[in-house]
Amino acid sequence: MQSSRLRGPTYHSSPSSHSSKQLVSRSMAARRLLCSLFLAAALFGVASAATRRHDWDIGYQFTSPDCVRKLAVTINGHTPGPTIRAVQGDTIVVAVKNSLLTENVAIHWHGIRQIGTPWADGTEGVTQCPILPGDTFTYTFVVDRPGTYMYHAHYGMQRSAGLNGMIVVEVPPGGQPEPFAYDKDHTVLLNDWWHKSTYEQAAGLASVPMVWVGEPQSLLINGRGRFVNCSSAPTTAASCNVSHPDCAPPVFAVVPGKTYRFRIASVTSLSALSFEIEGHEMTVVEADGHYVKPFVVKNLNIYSGETYSVLVTANQDPNRNYWLASNVVSRKPGTPTGTAILSYYGGRSSPRARPPTPPPAGPAWNDTAYRVRQSLATVAHPAHVVAPPVSSDRTILLLNTQNKIDGRIKWALNNVSFTLPHTPYLVAMKRGLLGAYDERPPPETYDHAGYDVYAVQKNPNATTSDGLYRLRFGSVVDVVLQNANMLGPNSSETHPWHLHGHDFWVLGYGAGRFDPAVHPATYNLKDPIMKNTVAVHPFGWTALRFRADNPGVWAFHCHIEAHFFMGMGVVFEEGVERVGELPPEIMGCGKTRGGH
Amino acid sequence: MQSSRLRGPTYHSSPSSHSSKQLVSRSMAARRLLCSLFLAAALFGVASAATRRHDWDIGYQFTSPDCVRKLAVTINGHTPGPTIRAVQGDTIVVAVKNSLLTENVAIHWHGIRQIGTPWADGTEGVTQCPILPGDTFTYTFVVDRPGTYMYHAHYGMQRSAGLNGMIVVEVPPGGQPEPFAYDKDHTVLLNDWWHKSTYEQAAGLASVPMVWVGEPQSLLINGRGRFVNCSSAPTTAASCNVSHPDCAPPVFAVVPGKTYRFRIASVTSLSALSFEIEGHEMTVVEADGHYVKPFVVKNLNIYSGETYSVLVTANQDPNRNYWLASNVVSRKPGTPTGTAILSYYGGRSSPRARPPTPPPAGPAWNDTAYRVRQSLATVAHPAHVVAPPVSSDRTILLLNTQNKIDGRIKWALNNVSFTLPHTPYLVAMKRGLLGAYDERPPPETYDHAGYDVYAVQKNPNATTSDGLYRLRFGSVVDVVLQNANMLGPNSSETHPWHLHGHDFWVLGYGAGRFDPAVHPATYNLKDPIMKNTVAVHPFGWTALRFRADNPGVWAFHCHIEAHFFMGMGVVFEEGVERVGELPPEIMGCGKTRGGH
Repeated sequence: MQSSRLRGPTYHSSPSSHSSKQLVSRSMAARRLLCSLFLAAALFGVASAATRRHDWDIGYQFTSPDCVRKLAVTINGHTPGPTIRAVQGDTIVVAVKNSLLTENVAIHWHGIRQIGTPWADGTEGVTQCPILPGDTFTYTFVVDRPGTYMYHAHYGMQRSAGLNGMIVVEVPPGGQPEPFAYDKDHTVLLNDWWHKSTYEQAAGLASVPMVWVGEPQSLLINGRGRFVNCSSAPTTAASCNVSHPDCAPPVFAVVPGKTYRFRIASVTSLSALSFEIEGHEMTVVEADGHYVKPFVVKNLNIYSGETYSVLVTANQDPNRNYWLASNVVSRKPGTPTGTAILSYYGGRSSPRARPPTPPPAGPAWNDTAYRVRQSLATVAHPAHVVAPPVSSDRTILLLNTQNKIDGRIKWALNNVSFTLPHTPYLVAMKRGLLGAYDERPPPETYDHAGYDVYAVQKNPNATTSDGLYRLRFGSVVDVVLQNANMLGPNSSETHPWHLHGHDFWVLGYGAGRFDPAVHPATYNLKDPIMKNTVAVHPFGWTALRFRADNPGVWAFHCHIEAHFFMGMGVVFEEGVERVGELPPEIMGCGKTRGGH
Repeated sequence: MQSSRLRGPTYHSSPSSHSSKQLVSRSMAARRLLCSLFLAAALFGVASAATRRHDWDIGYQFTSPDCVRKLAVTINGHTPGPTIRAVQGDTIVVAVKNSLLTENVAIHWHGIRQIGTPWADGTEGVTQCPILPGDTFTYTFVVDRPGTYMYHAHYGMQRSAGLNGMIVVEVPPGGQPEPFAYDKDHTVLLNDWWHKSTYEQAAGLASVPMVWVGEPQSLLINGRGRFVNCSSAPTTAASCNVSHPDCAPPVFAVVPGKTYRFRIASVTSLSALSFEIEGHEMTVVEADGHYVKPFVVKNLNIYSGETYSVLVTANQDPNRNYWLASNVVSRKPGTPTGTAILSYYGGRSSPRARPPTPPPAGPAWNDTAYRVRQSLATVAHPAHVVAPPVSSDRTILLLNTQNKIDGRIKWALNNVSFTLPHTPYLVAMKRGLLGAYDERPPPETYDHAGYDVYAVQKNPNATTSDGLYRLRFGSVVDVVLQNANMLGPNSSETHPWHLHGHDFWVLGYGAGRFDPAVHPATYNLKDPIMKNTVAVHPFGWTALRFRADNPGVWAFHCHIEAHFFMGMGVVFEEGVERVGELPPEIMGCGKTRGGH
């Protein structure tokens, strides 16, 4: 990683003397970058900002994250990839070289709003064509807010293959101070892990009858776990090596008396998790880059796509080690606890020594009320409330159902299962390419008065569409996500919904059927937290509000990899006419194939 | 498959009334096709020709070709794909839709010279950019000669994943009759099969230290085999099902007294094979689409990329079944015999009954002399000799060696290991894109006087390059492929070299060092067979001649999938300035990314 402090005026040099087409194109790219830099400077009063360049090589690598050898997709040979550390206002430049053999790639910067750079969101089919083997695509964007974020592949089910990592953005010197103090931070990236390849998983999902991915074999903390059946299961005995360095347990060292900020992100493909540090209370202070009114938990519920910061004081007996533990909740667990070790400097225990107690098993997996309470407790820090607009211009009600289309199980919103177009929306809309996607918008609502969310849907049929919602630029939009019973009786899951390009206010959660005549009156307009990912609890609803003020095209979808693959998503467009000239590098597929 | 007889005059309608850009582009495509059709008609005196359209959907599918479940890449759900049947002069149109999730694809029509359509050769990096997921690429080409051919993926190591099939081109009514007669034909596609994915195989080959792909687990006949360790090996017991319909043995039914043409193609990734039909003599009559002076064999040696036709008369006891058997030769076999069943109509044996004898084990795997004799016996049919030019304008001597580059094992020609560029040569050269490939040609020869082909090379270093040989259009080129000892002592393998876009005359084979002052005098200029694939035997040399008269850019490489991946290939260009306007659909990668 190279880092260089840039001064604004350096970028003022006029490109007018350039004559060749290539140079003009370069100067346009420079101007776009310049805009972003100035925007960042203007927004945050930062006098100077750094440009932090990373060169990434995406390749196949045999890894043993849970001691079982598997081919992973890696960044510079590693999974997870490197943590990107930056300061608010910095420009991040990541040159992504695709060294895979036949497979394309795209990387999403999860939680970064991409203000002024919608083409850098990394969402294949929405904001860009994928990066072909042998090609290098350079993502350039500004990290405009401090906080804890992540990155991961956003193409097929490639995230599950190992392409993920964390982004940490610090408050700059002289910036607005954070409403809490700590001595040092630790990063904790939570994941779930399968031994089957993502190609096999995807082929199973698309089969008739569907082959579900099943529960993960292991839970990983910072890319490490331990498959329990290593020696007993014949299918893995040959490829399982419990002393492989890839699966050595992560150790988090602390100094007695000091306070640590644990920056925690979940990039799981499926699992909702409960995270804890044995014997230590955690004070929740940040969620998705926003400051939380502090509250203390023993277990942090964290859904795929969410990030949290918790403060932990090293105030326990330093002469033993403690477990960091990750347990599956919301689905009946079929996976053992994921573990790491908390170890005190200067204590009598060896840093890698197994704690004397068994790893914590977490709360009851089906205690929904417990998890809803934590969702409700997550509100804005009093000194950092961003007041939501008091009303919205438009409300979109989305009924989340499991459906059957052509014998395949799908997920649908208002009975429409989402498919990605092959020409990215951003390109198709800017260029006016007709027929690139269905111009008919998906339905705005459903028959909410007559729908029993606790019953099996009478007619599980649905249609597929790549239509999208076009939002009036600057308008305020409410979305209510209504969960329901699945295809089988008495079943409903938790869905973590992630919005690209925005943070939204979380206005409320409810159990059962949402009633638009009743429930909006219960919304929290006083101190709602802003987030980019939010849970929709079983048989419940979640209401959120956002301002459609970021020109671009933005995905909004369940962050469970298999669910998005099965159609659980929608797309919003706003102010696409305000988006500047698109970088040609995002094109080359679908209707822009071969320079069309 | 749709088939429609077209009449020449139908294509005479002038496209001049078209006005929009799209229509002009369409009319250009039509004109290109028209050229090809007229060319075909002119060459072969065919009054009318059919256009045969195929719609292919490329996807993942769980298959059990050898009773072990594996994810394969399939055509319309099957591997091998459908046999393309056509008549000489027909135009084949194959619309290839890529329904893979994140993986691109390209399909090569092996043995079809693509006269007038060099962009349809399907060689990723040479003639086209790969086809992206969601895209459909339409290959249109004329099958200009009768014979037995094949198709397969030509991208990464995708051929091994299941993308392959056969092409059978018949003599049209009124065309030149074939110099032999038969009652019916059977197609036999030979392959080898691994349980590891091609991603794992490729990652192993690129690792330091290299992980070799190893011997195949099974040999397949028409996509079917049987893994012998099905029930005993714990790693496969769970996924192995000996009664799976995918691995039911193929049955070839014959009527007593009739004569059959067995059209045999080998699409193996690694293995040289010996094929036989128990108890039945085979008369070799065709090789790579050219008529052979008939000779009788018990075992047919067939190398990857080769096709043969043999005549077999059903003249044995009809009351028992017989084995079709495929055995590994040239490498020490680690794979059991691949089998199928020959069954007589009206006999007393059930068609699927196991023959009463054990499957034939084939000849000694290391009997090189036996195989060389068959190579030498393969000469042109007396009535169909195409006389070679008596001399050549240029001779390229290619020393085939195994080398080490940056700790990785590679194959090299004259110490240059081939790498594919990311902008296809055909596009880069037609558009004059600088820097798309190394403009310095690879070496024309090596120190042949001083090289001991039986010794371990003193210095195994080599360089990599994507340079190519530019041939004067219309010139006659000799290529001598010199085999040598590998990195280890006393080791040399058979390499089947395949030339795209041409047939070449096979002028001679020799053992040991080729001497340009001596051996050309021994060339067979009287009745050499023409082929597109030829074996270079261990420690030996093979000399071939071709006329560089097909405008385009053409790969020439070892047909062993892993060897080409490790650099064992070169590329020829000839008359690229004569190539018509390129279809934009072949672009979109490398320097043509995003319409550059």
